[in-house]
Amino acid sequence: MDQQDEAFMIEALMLAQRGIELGDGGPFGAVLVLDGRIIGRGWNQVVKLNDPTAHAEMLAIRDACAHAKRFHLPGSVLYTSCEPCPMCLSAAYWTHIERLVYAAGAEDAAAIGFSDSEIKAELDKSTDDRVIITRQLFRERSLALFAQWRESDKRVDY
Amino acid sequence: MDQQDEAFMIEALMLAQRGIELGDGGPFGAVLVLDGRIIGRGWNQVVKLNDPTAHAEMLAIRDACAHAKRFHLPGSVLYTSCEPCPMCLSAAYWTHIERLVYAAGAEDAAAIGFSDSEIKAELDKSTDDRVIITRQLFRERSLALFAQWRESDKRVDY
Repeated sequence: MDQQDEAFMIEALMLAQRGIELGDGGPFGAVLVLDGRIIGRGWNQVVKLNDPTAHAEMLAIRDACAHAKRFHLPGSVLYTSCEPCPMCLSAAYWTHIERLVYAAGAEDAAAIGFSDSEIKAELDKSTDDRVIITRQLFRERSLALFAQWRESDKRVDY
Repeated sequence: MDQQDEAFMIEALMLAQRGIELGDGGPFGAVLVLDGRIIGRGWNQVVKLNDPTAHAEMLAIRDACAHAKRFHLPGSVLYTSCEPCPMCLSAAYWTHIERLVYAAGAEDAAAIGFSDSEIKAELDKSTDDRVIITRQLFRERSLALFAQWRESDKRVDY
């Protein structure tokens, strides 16, 4: 496992380097491995794509799932050149990833201006205390749609 | 603000309904509003796109940013038919959204099988205690890339 981890992490680091050379966004790369093969690749493209969600891990996950034609990848391993932010780590859980290997830590990313500590703190607050002003509206109308979905013959549970 | 909120939430609910009728994924819709106009729309397409990140809010954010050609949207408001999961809420912070209006609550989503409570709990654990097995490897190599990025004339800070 160790030698495999090293080879796959080197690929993630090479993708990070490619992104730096292209000027596509932050210096981060990731690959997703299933059954010993890379099936998804990504590097940060926030700037290039004007997409705040285009982190390396998100693009690697989306690339892998599109390739596998599945939205869950149990048994897969995500290699990323930097510890995932809460968005990317949550995405890893939604994808049912089994293992995560990262290189730089969240504190290293913060030292070059990519801090996710505020986001982590916000997630733990109640909605009333968050920086993003939050309001609940029309709960019942959404529940009616939930009921419609439960009755739908097109429903796919996941 | 109240009447505007109602009109925009109704649009988010209509998108959720469209997704249900198409069988694209979970029963969730969202719109992103800037300066009183909808500039991004999304509904859950996890099943259709084989993309575990294709939540309604993520697609609305990506649509809005592509339209605005910017990866930050300060002053914008996200309307979503259900309280965002940690992935989507984190994405809202990366996008610099100002306000969030949601209809159903996270507990309502859990009642129809879309629970994010495990993810929330995992985010608060140390890496050693998480369900996703986690390892750090090659930190120094990633730090060398961070240094390369800091020196790059293609660097765009964000």
